[in-house]
Amino acid sequence: MSIAERPFDEELKLLKEKLLEMAARAEEQIALAVRGLKDREEKLACQVLEREASINRLDIEVDDMCLRLLALRQPMAADLRFITAAMKIASDLERIGDLAVNIAERTMDLLKQPELKPLIDIPRMAELAQQMVRDALNAFVNKDSVLAKDVCARDDAVDQLNNQVFRELLTYMMQDPGTISVAVDLILVGRHLERIADHATNIGEDVIYMVQGRTIKHHIEEGRTSGLKPCSGGE
Amino acid sequence: MSIAERPFDEELKLLKEKLLEMAARAEEQIALAVRGLKDREEKLACQVLEREASINRLDIEVDDMCLRLLALRQPMAADLRFITAAMKIASDLERIGDLAVNIAERTMDLLKQPELKPLIDIPRMAELAQQMVRDALNAFVNKDSVLAKDVCARDDAVDQLNNQVFRELLTYMMQDPGTISVAVDLILVGRHLERIADHATNIGEDVIYMVQGRTIKHHIEEGRTSGLKPCSGGE
Repeated sequence: MSIAERPFDEELKLLKEKLLEMAARAEEQIALAVRGLKDREEKLACQVLEREASINRLDIEVDDMCLRLLALRQPMAADLRFITAAMKIASDLERIGDLAVNIAERTMDLLKQPELKPLIDIPRMAELAQQMVRDALNAFVNKDSVLAKDVCARDDAVDQLNNQVFRELLTYMMQDPGTISVAVDLILVGRHLERIADHATNIGEDVIYMVQGRTIKHHIEEGRTSGLKPCSGGE
Repeated sequence: MSIAERPFDEELKLLKEKLLEMAARAEEQIALAVRGLKDREEKLACQVLEREASINRLDIEVDDMCLRLLALRQPMAADLRFITAAMKIASDLERIGDLAVNIAERTMDLLKQPELKPLIDIPRMAELAQQMVRDALNAFVNKDSVLAKDVCARDDAVDQLNNQVFRELLTYMMQDPGTISVAVDLILVGRHLERIADHATNIGEDVIYMVQGRTIKHHIEEGRTSGLKPCSGGE
């Protein structure tokens, strides 16, 4: 059955399913990558690299679906915002998949070196980030702006964990320069996880916009960056 | 004059101008952030933080413009692809602005510490990344897929410079643990610049898709990641 023959609601349902599938794969990639790192299993890191193509393929499928819906159905108002949000979300999920690949690449490098210590905070960050991705997608399919806001609020916890990981690894390096190479790789893994959480936050912001209208976007971000000390003088 | 009264071509021209303005500001943010770092001028880093809001505002304006064009004009084929590409490009430019802020934040941290050495490769990476952003946007407004491909091809040079910076800083740290904190900050700056180049590459890919159709996207990415050694065994 071609797109023109299917009821519009059914098309939107298919689009939701495709995005949920993409999100499930992205989550699985994060889990695999971090499990490979934690358990020192190169095979898992390899699997992450091999599976990346399937997420890229889904990104293309979602994009094509959205373009066809825009062209053939010419949706208005809420449906239009839903479809453009879907395009943005697919692009965030694709980047999340890329970041999982980056973690797997770091893992392959780390596995050539001795273990620094059993990892605790990094797997914890990964769990938080995965849950954010899952909830952001649930917020999207259920048009639930309360859940979406909650996802955005959780970004701070991941940032804090990352800062903690960062400081701890700096201390290791300073005490024993032999750990520098491993510690830097782990700092980068922490950064990748922090960025995954940022992408989940972007999805949350898109959902809030989709449900409530434009006013929210970037306010959250401004709130986030305003944790910085204000610059006196300035321009 | 409201959107419904303006000729469609004029609307598209306005959209292009808005994106070019956004790109010019994003480029300027990169330049300011890296100049602040190179010349150890805190004032420049502060300016980057203060100017971020204007890029976010432009992102919202572009998005609203695109949504209104989609809703009111119901464009087909090439125009539809142009408008959806514009939405994606705005989102990449906004992230580039965020990355410039991240560099400025690292700079403020670095300025509290002694200088490691005069910076050469990092400013060079910044120049390459800025040129990529500029050319990616020129490729977009001129629908020039040859230039867009050229932008994508330049991503490797930035990656190589970043790897060089990374290795050099690792060596510094190993030779003198007193440099660790500064070196890690500089490694992160290198990463941010690498990601700016990635976003310019994303824009290039979107332009290629817009001009030629879907087939290119992700092929370039696959080409990029395929530099990795293949995993034997695998799934």
